[in-house]
Amino acid sequence: MKLKEIAALVDGYLVGETEFEIKGINNLEEAQPEDLVFLFHSRYLEQARETRACSIVLEEVEAQSLVGKNLLIVDNPRLAYIKLAKYFSPFVFPPAGVHPSAFVHPQASLAEGVVVGPFSVIEEGATIAAGTCLFSQVYVGKGVKIGADCLIFPQVVIREQCQIGNRVILQAGVVIGGDGFGYERTKDGYLKLPHIGRVVIEDEVEIGANSTVDRATMGETRIGAGTKIDNLVMVAHNVKIGKNVVIVAQSGIAGSSTIGDNSVLAGQSGVVDHCKLEPGVTVLSRGGVVNDIPAGKTVSGFPAQEHHQHLRQQALVKKLPQLWQRVRSLEKKIGGK
Amino acid sequence: MKLKEIAALVDGYLVGETEFEIKGINNLEEAQPEDLVFLFHSRYLEQARETRACSIVLEEVEAQSLVGKNLLIVDNPRLAYIKLAKYFSPFVFPPAGVHPSAFVHPQASLAEGVVVGPFSVIEEGATIAAGTCLFSQVYVGKGVKIGADCLIFPQVVIREQCQIGNRVILQAGVVIGGDGFGYERTKDGYLKLPHIGRVVIEDEVEIGANSTVDRATMGETRIGAGTKIDNLVMVAHNVKIGKNVVIVAQSGIAGSSTIGDNSVLAGQSGVVDHCKLEPGVTVLSRGGVVNDIPAGKTVSGFPAQEHHQHLRQQALVKKLPQLWQRVRSLEKKIGGK
Amino acid sequence: MKLKEIAALVDGYLVGETEFEIKGINNLEEAQPEDLVFLFHSRYLEQARETRACSIVLEEVEAQSLVGKNLLIVDNPRLAYIKLAKYFSPFVFPPAGVHPSAFVHPQASLAEGVVVGPFSVIEEGATIAAGTCLFSQVYVGKGVKIGADCLIFPQVVIREQCQIGNRVILQAGVVIGGDGFGYERTKDGYLKLPHIGRVVIEDEVEIGANSTVDRATMGETRIGAGTKIDNLVMVAHNVKIGKNVVIVAQSGIAGSSTIGDNSVLAGQSGVVDHCKLEPGVTVLSRGGVVNDIPAGKTVSGFPAQEHHQHLRQQALVKKLPQLWQRVRSLEKKIGGK
Repeated sequence: MKLKEIAALVDGYLVGETEFEIKGINNLEEAQPEDLVFLFHSRYLEQARETRACSIVLEEVEAQSLVGKNLLIVDNPRLAYIKLAKYFSPFVFPPAGVHPSAFVHPQASLAEGVVVGPFSVIEEGATIAAGTCLFSQVYVGKGVKIGADCLIFPQVVIREQCQIGNRVILQAGVVIGGDGFGYERTKDGYLKLPHIGRVVIEDEVEIGANSTVDRATMGETRIGAGTKIDNLVMVAHNVKIGKNVVIVAQSGIAGSSTIGDNSVLAGQSGVVDHCKLEPGVTVLSRGGVVNDIPAGKTVSGFPAQEHHQHLRQQALVKKLPQLWQRVRSLEKKIGGK
Repeated sequence: MKLKEIAALVDGYLVGETEFEIKGINNLEEAQPEDLVFLFHSRYLEQARETRACSIVLEEVEAQSLVGKNLLIVDNPRLAYIKLAKYFSPFVFPPAGVHPSAFVHPQASLAEGVVVGPFSVIEEGATIAAGTCLFSQVYVGKGVKIGADCLIFPQVVIREQCQIGNRVILQAGVVIGGDGFGYERTKDGYLKLPHIGRVVIEDEVEIGANSTVDRATMGETRIGAGTKIDNLVMVAHNVKIGKNVVIVAQSGIAGSSTIGDNSVLAGQSGVVDHCKLEPGVTVLSRGGVVNDIPAGKTVSGFPAQEHHQHLRQQALVKKLPQLWQRVRSLEKKIGGK
Repeated sequence: MKLKEIAALVDGYLVGETEFEIKGINNLEEAQPEDLVFLFHSRYLEQARETRACSIVLEEVEAQSLVGKNLLIVDNPRLAYIKLAKYFSPFVFPPAGVHPSAFVHPQASLAEGVVVGPFSVIEEGATIAAGTCLFSQVYVGKGVKIGADCLIFPQVVIREQCQIGNRVILQAGVVIGGDGFGYERTKDGYLKLPHIGRVVIEDEVEIGANSTVDRATMGETRIGAGTKIDNLVMVAHNVKIGKNVVIVAQSGIAGSSTIGDNSVLAGQSGVVDHCKLEPGVTVLSRGGVVNDIPAGKTVSGFPAQEHHQHLRQQALVKKLPQLWQRVRSLEKKIGGK
């Protein structure tokens, strides 16, 4: 594709050889001369200067820093990347239709054109809407409802009665609807609480590889529309996650907690059970929330507290040797301990 | 089912309309008027007052707080729930027998009535006792022994020679018997230590989705009867876990450590290798155990120490600004640093 | 096998009954008299004295501490174990060839003798070199390249275009090439960044059960030769891991970070995005790296700092009650606060 054609696709302003032929898309370090690269952030300016690629998509503000390149100036290089990626590396869907090796229960209901890969299992009463693609070795339990245009990667498990919205993406190995972790201690050991609830995943949610979302004891575990969850995350029974929440890898949310819309949980963070995070809360990496958090707060540490407070305490811990020094020198001055 | 019938099932005392027809079981927030709900703890009293449900199972002590409801008074609402759940939302087993698509080695031995779901694999020499149900896409390696009345959810892997007791539940995606993590560093890099041991899981154990239990280098990794393990937990090679232990999500136990009976490891906790936790130890959330812990202790923090000690230190860290203030004012009084 | 034969295999010096017949290999606690056991470290000397086994492999320096046993003296008992394990407990490969139930795309290319277990899926354009064994229910996406003599355990997923070297071991449930976690926030919610890159895993890498390695946004996520990764580890998009790195269970490395050769990340540690660890860095358990780390450093804590510094701060935190005491006594001496 010629640079001028690419510029037209992303509504960009081109400085350089308009007829330059682009062969692929790559990152700054690994690009070849005929690749198109993107400057996503000014911190990569040095790498952009050193890239082998001749053509770079960037914001206007960076343009004068890069001489000798073809510059494709856009408002937002990340949005330009999102638009262009599919031309150079289209995601190839499996062939339409149900693979002959898949097991589809006669009482399951699949819209026309639904893709079901080899060795997938679709149980009785499950329904799958148009445009959805299940890769290989997926399990869809009894009565599960899956919306339209979903992408369910290999070896996902969706247990009975759970409900998946439209345009949901479940990465490989995700488990939806496992039994929640609840027991009653008796003199004969722990008795299992039946988990008769379900999981509801709203539209446009994405969940990363090998993450798990447990079904509710009763009622629902719910993940709100537009929420994005990374790999190896644990969402426990009866958790309610709002809309457009971001949960980074290896975080965990314990039973019955609620996470407000537009919140962010950074990597390896945690929320204990029965906590309420109001909308717009940010939990920084490794933050461990043990109380309700008011709207819009940024918290860190464990137990999580307001970030500036936590930072101050961390700084003072680092200064403890100095504090001892000063106490010792006071003691000396006034004559011993 | 009528309320009076339900009262009889749970040996409860009914105040209200004995003929009231119950349609389902639900939680307090999501219930409909004809649902039966449960008050599991007095902290939910407010939600119990606001529930749409007309009928509530509760302890006698809470009864006078809830007017205008049908009250079903029991000794333990959680035990009542355990008894009743199956009438309203019975867990439906897959059809009995081996699905024709499953691969069962001719030298495997399955008791009559064992359920094997589609695309499951049972290798040579495996034996499975009566009443056990393997869902779809399960893998059972060579020589594995599985007891009676187990529930093995989809896409569980049980590697060769491992042994599973009776009434064990393995949630989807669990991996039993992966190779332990052990190498010998040489000048040519790391040499893998063969892991020729196995995993033994005793009766009534439950393991949560995508958790992993590694096989022993030699001998056994063992999980004691009645122990309950949540999702995404890591149990390393040669670990010995006692009976009726509870391990909450995303915790990890490193190689050769032992966890005494009736211990509890809360969420995201950890135990380094070669530690011994005596019976009845509680490790609070995020606790990281690096030493042996005597029986009955409650520990927290990392490195984990007695909880009251850790709490005190945390409180003093929070008071560091105050301590600096006081040191500065002392300095002022006696004339500079 | 007789002890003298075993001694010859490991080039060891035998003190005791050379004709003693060894029946198996076991660990110190669980051994039977006719088992061979190993003393891997002097801290197990007490258990070695109490073992039921009559024959023990050990270093010369420990030999006089163990009377009444057959002693097989070697330079390195762990290397001896590596050599001997296969004679007593050989790892049994599945039968050669492609199981008739597997789905292998006609445009996939498998070297002669490649093992493919039941219900595995090998998509178009995948190539697998000689000596590699795929167990059951494995997924190999389009265009994937797998080298020679690999061991791919059940229910591994390798997504399209990823590349696996020679002698690589992927434990059960591993997911290679899931989409990285990257979005662009817009007023309509998060837009997914296409992840058109891949994962490259070099020779002799091992990855533990249910770990995940995400594909690059563009370019490569790369794991260097000889690197060993434990269970439930998360390696994010565009991470570059060097050679002979060790990453212990439940650790996570965020996007675009690089880990130098011969580094070690202990259990439950973490590295935030865009960090650079130079070669030979050690991150101790639970360490959370938030900055670049120079070569050879040992760091701990969160945020991770040099270990000795962190230790000192931890010690001073423990002494905070004492510090308060001393400040209070100063205040008393000079007359109140």
